[in-house]
Amino acid sequence: MKNVILTGDRPTGRLHIGHYVGSLRKRVEMQNNCDYDGMFIMIADTQALTDNYDDPEKIRGNITEVALDYLSVGIDPSKATIFIQSLVPELTELTFYYMNLVTVSRLHRNPTVKAEIQMRKFDNSIPAGFLCYPVSQTADITAFKASWVPVGEDQLPMLEQSREIVRKFNDIYGNILVEPKAILPDSQVCKRLPGIDGNAKMSKSLGNCIYLSDDSDSIKRKVMSMFTDPLHIKIDDPGHLGGNTVFSYLDAFCKNEHFSCFLPEYSNLDELKEHYIKGGLSDVKVKRFLNEILQSELKPIREKRLELEKNLPYMYEILKKGSENAQRVASLTLAEVKKAMKINYFS
Amino acid sequence: MKNVILTGDRPTGRLHIGHYVGSLRKRVEMQNNCDYDGMFIMIADTQALTDNYDDPEKIRGNITEVALDYLSVGIDPSKATIFIQSLVPELTELTFYYMNLVTVSRLHRNPTVKAEIQMRKFDNSIPAGFLCYPVSQTADITAFKASWVPVGEDQLPMLEQSREIVRKFNDIYGNILVEPKAILPDSQVCKRLPGIDGNAKMSKSLGNCIYLSDDSDSIKRKVMSMFTDPLHIKIDDPGHLGGNTVFSYLDAFCKNEHFSCFLPEYSNLDELKEHYIKGGLSDVKVKRFLNEILQSELKPIREKRLELEKNLPYMYEILKKGSENAQRVASLTLAEVKKAMKINYFS
Repeated sequence: MKNVILTGDRPTGRLHIGHYVGSLRKRVEMQNNCDYDGMFIMIADTQALTDNYDDPEKIRGNITEVALDYLSVGIDPSKATIFIQSLVPELTELTFYYMNLVTVSRLHRNPTVKAEIQMRKFDNSIPAGFLCYPVSQTADITAFKASWVPVGEDQLPMLEQSREIVRKFNDIYGNILVEPKAILPDSQVCKRLPGIDGNAKMSKSLGNCIYLSDDSDSIKRKVMSMFTDPLHIKIDDPGHLGGNTVFSYLDAFCKNEHFSCFLPEYSNLDELKEHYIKGGLSDVKVKRFLNEILQSELKPIREKRLELEKNLPYMYEILKKGSENAQRVASLTLAEVKKAMKINYFS
Repeated sequence: MKNVILTGDRPTGRLHIGHYVGSLRKRVEMQNNCDYDGMFIMIADTQALTDNYDDPEKIRGNITEVALDYLSVGIDPSKATIFIQSLVPELTELTFYYMNLVTVSRLHRNPTVKAEIQMRKFDNSIPAGFLCYPVSQTADITAFKASWVPVGEDQLPMLEQSREIVRKFNDIYGNILVEPKAILPDSQVCKRLPGIDGNAKMSKSLGNCIYLSDDSDSIKRKVMSMFTDPLHIKIDDPGHLGGNTVFSYLDAFCKNEHFSCFLPEYSNLDELKEHYIKGGLSDVKVKRFLNEILQSELKPIREKRLELEKNLPYMYEILKKGSENAQRVASLTLAEVKKAMKINYFS
């Protein structure tokens, strides 16, 4: 079996550092170090439309933003195929056929969808397209015969749903589709980086994100305003790490070499934490350290982004070529699927 | 606005005289006498798969049967485009986008779908594709900008669903889609011809159909075994018309000229009915009359069918050409739809 990687994002806004530590960083690492036969990165515009159908302009605009973010963090179009979902209509055809293989009640039971329905306050007005988007995801994954799908932990039920559909398809029509495997972020904190306000979720609507495209001043301002430990009032008070956003971010970003560069009094994060817990270490000092780390990590990304923004036609060409390549691969799978389903009447 | 007609059938079996009086006869009449700009007749294989996904071989085989039935009753491929649904993938793309415009609970409330779910004993295992097939029907109708949709009365809620989706689409994205209008069968009995056993529904699984392709002996045998009036035991007993299948069939098929040909003692159906109600008219006599009528009506259809069966490549060519034509039209609509939805990134 070939090793094929598929990942992607809904183009509903610029990507933030939660996306970065949760997925993008891993993708670049896999792209550069893994032994794989194909890597596909999808800008999921039609999936984004399932709950933004009345605002397609927003989706359209954010395709460019997400593509810029991809290239800025180091996704290399010569190694990975970046494509736009709606430009691969084969995916809707596969979705259509897979919809017969899953029951409505099974879709309702999907914990990820359940949580998202609650979050979006759909109540009894769930768009059919939204309820069925796990089926559409299965089409995305299987069209490229993806074996590895780097996802956040919250997406595991989606992947289980996909695996069920794959098994059912293969049972009925023959062994055509590949069962995908989830690749999770390395550490717990990377699975879901909290917002700067301490909210468990970093989200545009909560206004608590640090974006990959944020300028230096915005990053600093956001870091300095971050939620820490409400009981740590005076410097000498003992500090707490649980729910302390600054330390969560350090867990996600800090490497030992950062200390020699920016905070040589400590040699590693454990020492810093120990001091904070004992008391005598100010939040401001820790925040300044985090700021230095983020600035150093995000500066090359931002600069690459500014460079790319000067040549948008180049980026559009990448998306166009990538989508053509993705369509070529998906159409081969679709032909196999239709043959297996015996709906290849004239071929 | 142009007048475009769309109809179709699921290829789950050969067509029977219920289809004929309920829809096919009307289609041929419209084809030959109406002022229209386009007429499309769809063999709905992908729709049939929504509840036959585990038996695609059956669907495949019945595409040929249904196409033969179409051509036999007088559908003229030079006037009407006969096509196979799965050969127009644009329909799945439209379905995908329309699924955002209808809620899951609205689909559950659709009376036609409700009845069909009950009939198929799905209980809590409704395939998502089945629940969503009204959305797929909307794609079929709107892809051709159909203004007239000849349907049975039981399909009216489906059409209302389509009209709702069309209105919602036009509200959000601009006035692109055409709201379809139902064309109902002329008379009550034609809306749903009962089975020969008196069951309200003529269906293959109940074994109570007279098929368009039935040979002369089968027709006679089926007519002579038909359910009549269980209270009409002796010839002289007064007869009842309510629930009397033979008279339902006469209502659907009998014309005045049939009396001069086959039963000159009466001049019209009212006279025959009057005699039956009064008593003194045997069921056998009425059945023989119905048999003569059906034989005369079905003989040319059957003979044409036998002729066509000798040259299947000709029929396949019609389906292939028709599907290509349908795809051409649907792709124009899809391009308009995607433009209106602003997902035409590179065109």
